Amino acid sequence: MTKGRIFSGMQPSGRFHLGNYMGALENWVRLQHEYECFFSIVDLHALTSSYSDTSKLQENVMEMAIDWLSAGLDPEKNVIFVQSHVKEHAELALLLGMSTPLSWLERVPTYKDKLQNWSAQGKDNNTYGFLGYPVLMAADIMLYKATCVPVGEDQSAHLELTREIVRRFNYLYNREVFPEPQAVFSKAKVLPGIDGRKMSKSYGNTIPFGAGPEEMWERIRMMTTDPQRIKKTDPGHPEVCIVYAFHKVFNPEEYEEIGARCRAGEIGCVECKKRLAEKMNALLADIHTKREELSKKPEYIKEVLDYGAQRARKEAEKTMAEVKTAMNVL
Amino acid sequence: MTKGRIFSGMQPSGRFHLGNYMGALENWVRLQHEYECFFSIVDLHALTSSYSDTSKLQENVMEMAIDWLSAGLDPEKNVIFVQSHVKEHAELALLLGMSTPLSWLERVPTYKDKLQNWSAQGKDNNTYGFLGYPVLMAADIMLYKATCVPVGEDQSAHLELTREIVRRFNYLYNREVFPEPQAVFSKAKVLPGIDGRKMSKSYGNTIPFGAGPEEMWERIRMMTTDPQRIKKTDPGHPEVCIVYAFHKVFNPEEYEEIGARCRAGEIGCVECKKRLAEKMNALLADIHTKREELSKKPEYIKEVLDYGAQRARKEAEKTMAEVKTAMNVL
Repeated sequence: MTKGRIFSGMQPSGRFHLGNYMGALENWVRLQHEYECFFSIVDLHALTSSYSDTSKLQENVMEMAIDWLSAGLDPEKNVIFVQSHVKEHAELALLLGMSTPLSWLERVPTYKDKLQNWSAQGKDNNTYGFLGYPVLMAADIMLYKATCVPVGEDQSAHLELTREIVRRFNYLYNREVFPEPQAVFSKAKVLPGIDGRKMSKSYGNTIPFGAGPEEMWERIRMMTTDPQRIKKTDPGHPEVCIVYAFHKVFNPEEYEEIGARCRAGEIGCVECKKRLAEKMNALLADIHTKREELSKKPEYIKEVLDYGAQRARKEAEKTMAEVKTAMNVL
Repeated sequence: MTKGRIFSGMQPSGRFHLGNYMGALENWVRLQHEYECFFSIVDLHALTSSYSDTSKLQENVMEMAIDWLSAGLDPEKNVIFVQSHVKEHAELALLLGMSTPLSWLERVPTYKDKLQNWSAQGKDNNTYGFLGYPVLMAADIMLYKATCVPVGEDQSAHLELTREIVRRFNYLYNREVFPEPQAVFSKAKVLPGIDGRKMSKSYGNTIPFGAGPEEMWERIRMMTTDPQRIKKTDPGHPEVCIVYAFHKVFNPEEYEEIGARCRAGEIGCVECKKRLAEKMNALLADIHTKREELSKKPEYIKEVLDYGAQRARKEAEKTMAEVKTAMNVL
C-alpha cells in the first residue's frame, strides 16, 4: 500500500544544477518509495514563457530525463514521461478552462509578479497561454487523479487553485470525478550559489548536477570565503563563508568541528575546500557515473520516455472518458 | 480542381431553425460543390458559453448532424465530424495560445459585447475558455490548413485574428506551416421571425428546420400581417407584412404580383399565407422527408460522424507533426 498517488513536474529549461537537485529531485527520489508517482517533464509549461525560442527544447528534455534517472528515479516504479506526449493534457486543460473564471487566474500572486519581472527586463510575455498556466497545471494533476502534490514555497497558490477547479468540476457535473489533491510539504535544502547569491543559471554561479571531480573542484575552488581572512592563522567567520554553508548540507558529521577549527585559525581555506570536494564527490560519484553512462544511450532514454508515455496515456484516457461522460461530450 | 479548402463549424445549441438554414447551411450546400470542405459540429465552442448545463449537448449534436445531412451535405464529398472527436483541436489551441497576446483577445469586438449582454441578463460568464474562443477557432481552421472560411457579419474580426495568429506562428518558427485563410463572403438571406423580430429560439418566433406541412402551417398561420387591414378589401401594406417578407425569399416568381394584389385589396391574408405554405412545403419537402428518415437511424448518423472523425484526424495528425517539428516539441 502506498500513501497515495503523486503527480509532479519540472520544466526542462536547461542543464540542471545542484540547487535544483537539492530543492526538488532529491525529495522525489525519497517519495518514490512511499507513493505511486507520475513524474512529468512539462515541456508545454516551458512554452508558456519561452515559446519564442524553442531551439534547445528537445535537448533540454533529454538532459532532464538523464538527470532524473541518474539521480535514482526508477522508470519501472514511477511513470516518467514528457507532458506533450500525452495529448489529454491539452484536452483536459481546454475543458477545465471553460468553467474557470478569469478572476481566479488574474489573482494568482505569481502571475502579476512574473509579468512585472519580465516587464522590468523589457520582455512582454502577457499571453493567453501564460495566463492559463495554472489551468494546465490543474489538468496535469487531475488527469492522473493525483491525491498528493509535492509543493515548494511558490506553488501553494497554484495547488489551491487546482483544488478550487476540482471542487467546481465535481459540483458542476454533479459527481466526484476528481479527488482534491493535498500538499506534501518537503523540507528542501536551499543551496546558495558559489558567490553566495541564490543559485541560478542566470548568475553563472551554479554547480552543474552530475559534475565530475574536475568540474566540482573548479567550482568549489571559486567559492567565496570569509573576506577578512588572509592567512590560515587569522580567525575565520564561517557564518559568512559559502564553503561552510555547503559543509552544513553535504558534510553534517564534520560540520561543527570544521567551524570550530576555522574560528581558531587551525584550518586553511584550501584544505577546507578539499574536504568539501571529497565529501561531495563521494556523495555524487554514483550520480556522475550514471550520468556519463546514460548520456551515451539516447536510444535508451527515448525508450524509457516512450514507455512512460504509454503508461501515462492509459490512465489519462480512463480519466478523459469519465470527464466526457460527466460533461456529456461524447 | 476545387477552389481551395474550407473549414467551417456550427455550434450545436438546440434545434436548428429556418433562419439558421438560410443564413449558413444553404450556403454550405452550395459550397460543397466548389471546395474541399471540412464541416464540424463544434461542441467545444458550445461549452464556452454553456458549460454549466450540458444535459442536451449530445442530443443537439445528433440533431445537427441530421439537419446537415437532410439539407444535402454529402458525407462522402465533405469531411463531416464532431470537433471534440479530434483531440488535436485542443492540442493546437494550447500551443497557439502560448504565443497569442492577451490584448489581441481582449480587443475582439464580440468579446466585450457578449460579456455585457450576459451581464445584463445577470449571467457571469467571464471564463478563461470564453476569452480563448478565437484561439480555438484559429486552431480549428489551421488544423486543416484551410485556405477559405465562409464568413458571416459577426465573424470577420475572428477571421482577421486567425490570420494574425497564422502570421505570428509562421514568423516565430520561421517556416510557412500555415496558409492565411481568406474570407468567402456569402449573400446570406436574412429571415425575420414570425413576429417580425430577429428569428431566434429565445423569442419563440422560429420556424423549425425540417418542419412538416402541419407544423409549417401552424407557424405561418401565426405570422404577423398588416395590422391596419381588417377586411380583404382593405388596401394592404405588404412592406410591413411578415408573410410578404417570406414570399420575397421563398416565392420570388409571384412576389411582385402578390404585392400588387395586396395593395389593391384583391388577395386575403389567409389565401396569401396558404400560397406561401405551398411554396415553402414544396421547397422543403425533400428536406422534411429526409429528416424524418434519418431521425430513425441514429446508428447511421453515428457511423457518418465516426467516418468523418477518422478522416479529420488523419489530416489533423499530419498538421500536428509539422507544428511540433517547427516548435521543436517532439
